[in-house]
Amino acid sequence: MRRLGILTGGGDAPGLNAVIRAVVMTAYNEQRCEVVGIEDGYDGLVQAGRARVLTVDQVRGILTRGGTILGTANRGNPFARKVLRDGQEGIEDVSHLVMEGLQRLALDGLIVVGGDGTLRIAHELHQKFNLPVVGVPKTIDNDLGGTDVTFGFDTALQTATDAFDKLHTTAESHHRVIVLELMGRDAGFITLHSGVAGGADVILIPEIPFDLAVVCRKIEEREAFGYKYSIVAVSEGAHPKGGEQTFSRAGDAVYTPRLGGIGHQIGAVIERETGKETRVTVLGHVQRGGAPSPFDRWLATRYGAHAIRLAAAGEWDRMVALHGQQVTDVPLAEAIAVPKRVDPEGEPVRAARGLGIVFG
Amino acid sequence: MRRLGILTGGGDAPGLNAVIRAVVMTAYNEQRCEVVGIEDGYDGLVQAGRARVLTVDQVRGILTRGGTILGTANRGNPFARKVLRDGQEGIEDVSHLVMEGLQRLALDGLIVVGGDGTLRIAHELHQKFNLPVVGVPKTIDNDLGGTDVTFGFDTALQTATDAFDKLHTTAESHHRVIVLELMGRDAGFITLHSGVAGGADVILIPEIPFDLAVVCRKIEEREAFGYKYSIVAVSEGAHPKGGEQTFSRAGDAVYTPRLGGIGHQIGAVIERETGKETRVTVLGHVQRGGAPSPFDRWLATRYGAHAIRLAAAGEWDRMVALHGQQVTDVPLAEAIAVPKRVDPEGEPVRAARGLGIVFG
Amino acid sequence: MRRLGILTGGGDAPGLNAVIRAVVMTAYNEQRCEVVGIEDGYDGLVQAGRARVLTVDQVRGILTRGGTILGTANRGNPFARKVLRDGQEGIEDVSHLVMEGLQRLALDGLIVVGGDGTLRIAHELHQKFNLPVVGVPKTIDNDLGGTDVTFGFDTALQTATDAFDKLHTTAESHHRVIVLELMGRDAGFITLHSGVAGGADVILIPEIPFDLAVVCRKIEEREAFGYKYSIVAVSEGAHPKGGEQTFSRAGDAVYTPRLGGIGHQIGAVIERETGKETRVTVLGHVQRGGAPSPFDRWLATRYGAHAIRLAAAGEWDRMVALHGQQVTDVPLAEAIAVPKRVDPEGEPVRAARGLGIVFG
Amino acid sequence: MRRLGILTGGGDAPGLNAVIRAVVMTAYNEQRCEVVGIEDGYDGLVQAGRARVLTVDQVRGILTRGGTILGTANRGNPFARKVLRDGQEGIEDVSHLVMEGLQRLALDGLIVVGGDGTLRIAHELHQKFNLPVVGVPKTIDNDLGGTDVTFGFDTALQTATDAFDKLHTTAESHHRVIVLELMGRDAGFITLHSGVAGGADVILIPEIPFDLAVVCRKIEEREAFGYKYSIVAVSEGAHPKGGEQTFSRAGDAVYTPRLGGIGHQIGAVIERETGKETRVTVLGHVQRGGAPSPFDRWLATRYGAHAIRLAAAGEWDRMVALHGQQVTDVPLAEAIAVPKRVDPEGEPVRAARGLGIVFG
Repeated sequence: MRRLGILTGGGDAPGLNAVIRAVVMTAYNEQRCEVVGIEDGYDGLVQAGRARVLTVDQVRGILTRGGTILGTANRGNPFARKVLRDGQEGIEDVSHLVMEGLQRLALDGLIVVGGDGTLRIAHELHQKFNLPVVGVPKTIDNDLGGTDVTFGFDTALQTATDAFDKLHTTAESHHRVIVLELMGRDAGFITLHSGVAGGADVILIPEIPFDLAVVCRKIEEREAFGYKYSIVAVSEGAHPKGGEQTFSRAGDAVYTPRLGGIGHQIGAVIERETGKETRVTVLGHVQRGGAPSPFDRWLATRYGAHAIRLAAAGEWDRMVALHGQQVTDVPLAEAIAVPKRVDPEGEPVRAARGLGIVFG
Repeated sequence: MRRLGILTGGGDAPGLNAVIRAVVMTAYNEQRCEVVGIEDGYDGLVQAGRARVLTVDQVRGILTRGGTILGTANRGNPFARKVLRDGQEGIEDVSHLVMEGLQRLALDGLIVVGGDGTLRIAHELHQKFNLPVVGVPKTIDNDLGGTDVTFGFDTALQTATDAFDKLHTTAESHHRVIVLELMGRDAGFITLHSGVAGGADVILIPEIPFDLAVVCRKIEEREAFGYKYSIVAVSEGAHPKGGEQTFSRAGDAVYTPRLGGIGHQIGAVIERETGKETRVTVLGHVQRGGAPSPFDRWLATRYGAHAIRLAAAGEWDRMVALHGQQVTDVPLAEAIAVPKRVDPEGEPVRAARGLGIVFG
Repeated sequence: MRRLGILTGGGDAPGLNAVIRAVVMTAYNEQRCEVVGIEDGYDGLVQAGRARVLTVDQVRGILTRGGTILGTANRGNPFARKVLRDGQEGIEDVSHLVMEGLQRLALDGLIVVGGDGTLRIAHELHQKFNLPVVGVPKTIDNDLGGTDVTFGFDTALQTATDAFDKLHTTAESHHRVIVLELMGRDAGFITLHSGVAGGADVILIPEIPFDLAVVCRKIEEREAFGYKYSIVAVSEGAHPKGGEQTFSRAGDAVYTPRLGGIGHQIGAVIERETGKETRVTVLGHVQRGGAPSPFDRWLATRYGAHAIRLAAAGEWDRMVALHGQQVTDVPLAEAIAVPKRVDPEGEPVRAARGLGIVFG
Repeated sequence: MRRLGILTGGGDAPGLNAVIRAVVMTAYNEQRCEVVGIEDGYDGLVQAGRARVLTVDQVRGILTRGGTILGTANRGNPFARKVLRDGQEGIEDVSHLVMEGLQRLALDGLIVVGGDGTLRIAHELHQKFNLPVVGVPKTIDNDLGGTDVTFGFDTALQTATDAFDKLHTTAESHHRVIVLELMGRDAGFITLHSGVAGGADVILIPEIPFDLAVVCRKIEEREAFGYKYSIVAVSEGAHPKGGEQTFSRAGDAVYTPRLGGIGHQIGAVIERETGKETRVTVLGHVQRGGAPSPFDRWLATRYGAHAIRLAAAGEWDRMVALHGQQVTDVPLAEAIAVPKRVDPEGEPVRAARGLGIVFG
């Protein structure tokens, strides 16, 4: 009987537990192999003994739960692990310990569930040590290549859209500008999709540098038409065209943000420039949690089922993926080669522009 | 300036208003054409005067609302309209009145949002009278050809999955079998997807005739393993292999259902055959309502935007569609040629079987 | 160190686990006593060995879960327990076994969480055997005396109200009458509260026998005012004035219901009498499940904390209760003396009537 | 026929529209009086012409919507209104214009829906000008005297508790401390109730000054017991015992917050002192929005019905209130005399402490 390990890495995303459950149940019902759950990502392999056999009973009831019963890595990349030596922080390559951990646990292969970083490490471990590994893509940002969608994204969208719905009526009743800052350092998918779904008037994403003068003009145009409020959606990674100085319409008064985030920065400028009362909300980590949406459960379950089949068949260095409506798989290298970004000229952005939404 | 009509037909589906809003807003902001909203489906054309120009202001705030501000048809197909004549119900072909209605309203074209029936009529009107028409697919059942997904389906899934989540803990605490009957006369997508997402043990869909003996055996096996409860998902259109007599395991005692629906029928058999307390819930019309999910708002909005562009460009007899992540369009004829069904041998069903789910 | 048992009985209600958790955590942190969880209600005492010590670790994460980790009784009342003897169903008094079970588990007292039936048994066991018992009221119907509110009710209201919200837009778009049948055999609280919160036009509850002629007139009046739809909320225990014959307005055509429930019965009459398309939904057991609402978690937690204090202090034969905003306690006898019902002349019903809602 | 005005003031709270709807519908169906909706709080009276008769049709569909269709005040207190004069901001008493506005609109009385500030103005207008006024209490903070509960609070609790639920699994999976900052400048009800309902380990509220050393010790104790994560709930108005210097356990290193809010401040200290990765979320304005919960719709509806009856009966200078389960009324003076605060020694706080929750 084959014996396969599973670990989860990186930031939280709703659906991790659904993947684990599907792997364990499919292993038991169909593949007749054993699954070993490894704790806290690669750490559980590097540090001996942080693993346990996962039975069907242990994955009962976790389908609907956010988070991961396996925990995720604290100390990160085994190729460049943070260590304390003589009171000094340093970096150490402990990647060989991953292989030793695998052998000590007598594993025939490893399923790694994670985002860009975690999967890149998996691929490098395969290249360097021939690690028998299958990847499962996970990111709420939906910025992974090789697959149409990752699980976690749909649930994050629901959380973000729900926030827009709640803020909308307050903005309208109180004649305010509301700025909602959402996750997305490099990719604006959450902000774009939830902004459209939540009825935002302005959407600012990393892929399209913005001009606050355009944003303020939009707000004033709405005012002129009798809409005394506006909703601005902004990714944490959005940034102005040409740098910070463009934050001032006058051009002479560079705004120095009191608070770190882009949301608070542009909120202050908008209030000053338009004279409209402006409120900023930074949604933060709630976007990473919660019971996975039906779509994410469905996708995560199929990903898990496909991953254990690949592993049982010994098809290593591949990542499960969704193409259209079909769960399939691609080389891990392909998945991490080019990250996915919102296409500034693509149909979705054009659809949003056509509705009158301004991207700055 | 072009002047285009829009009507909604058929059963309710969350996202209809989002389509209408996107059509009107894109018409205003991008296409500079006028949109006329026609009331109650084709009825509003057949009966003069049931239409109004839709302004941007009139579609404010409807993005998040279920239903349709235009209403849907009561009297159905204009090729075979129900009429009362001398106290007798009859059928009449009034399809020419659709064209007259169009001309009376001075419309350059029509956007029809609907399911299989509504779109088929649109295509026939195009064939017979050269009706300038663009279709937008809508069905909570996701059973339309030509497109990967229809709006309304994701929201229905959420309602169905939420019901499973609620029933689960009761089943478990009270050691019961719970049967949940969901919509789907011919297609089992809602039941399959929500059954997997909701952790069902048995999934019965129209595409896979079931054997209740297999269902009861599954429930008893679970019992033997210490799981004193089971969840059975069943489409309204599911049916037994070879007809009703297989409802009895013994073969001799044909069960005559006291209540109409399949859910109550199989619930009664399961209770009798397994001796386990069984409760049946028929979720019904709540599956058609509610605020559309973020995905459905996003899809419906892009469908609306694409539809008005097609109409403005005079690309008639086509239906907007989602292929992979891309909104595009296909000939209406293609969309209605072959309805979509769950593939009994497809990857999703195999994934579910691998988890241990029984399809009867 | 005191050792106290806890059991849960009767139908499911969201918040049972929150009570169990609060009892165990307060016992550990404040009262320094031990809690033994008894399985499946009184059955776990009657049948030896169905109990386990509950540690703080075992109640982690259950605050948000519906159902009860202890299960509830299958075989019911120990004073009149169903037994099979020589293939015949009979009734047996095994109440003395409850006391024996208590002694065998070396319990100093018992906390019983349940509705009218479960608490009545607790009180009778106290009277007959001096059982050291504290009751915690639980019912989604809110029909228990001695307390303003029971946990479970608020969550049930949310489920019911959510159904109204979903049905509303469909009713409106499709010009239909929608009948929603809700739980409540003897008490109409769920139907009244959710009917008002869900914008129902007609509310039929057990406490106010209805006249369908009045109901149909209301629907027709709405039609006359241009509201082409109506929402009818009905408790499963609602019944017509003077019996079934009043179901016909004409008085001559007594309707014989094809389906058991009151919802389907009145739906058929309304459709026939008003000529309006009518759809019926029976919400069923979803009303008993789901994650408890914040209010129910808050109330259940305080109930649990108060219950363990009473038990630790040896204040037996009492039930925890909410009076106004205050958690307190009352004699068990008082709680079960008079069930709570909707007052047909009370302020809430008058408020609803003032809004134009018809009670038949 | 009497003619009564209604205005809404102060911050947003779910249920405002439900009050307006109940007032209008009860006025129409029961009291046969006319209701005039005044825009933007007292501003709509001070500035002529900002009012309209509210028909039953105009309040259709608003029961479920957050915000207020009437808007709320921008320029605030008519006794001390902000004005611009010669480019200078000043203060002006325009309270007499409220009375003039009332007369110009020919109103027999006024219903004022608002919080502490808005109701205080109402009472002062009554004292000074004999304004015929009835108050309806509104605040998400639940800090108004004279009533057990205000509408808006239950919905805010749900939003806050939902955030805890989402953050919980991330905290657990990632071994983090999560700090959630909630609304409440002077009253900690939202934080206390949602903290308990959301399973927080530490709850910091304005009424109980905290000691961060105690907070850090709690987190470390949990760690020692194997719980590698902790959840800290904090009101925006919470503050340390004796001032900021106690933020350092060492006593020597006073922490100077980089970011304004208390959440970020204590998060930084906790991370430094415990060495645990800490994340802070400031939930912000989403707490004020959203569809009102069933309880809030039910309460707001009864408040509205009672208010219009008081107004129709000429019972001025009173506020509607909930006492226990009963909607009643109290003198406005009583309601604003003493604000409501969490009792640091009350049963709810004791229950929370008994569960092991630390209040710093």
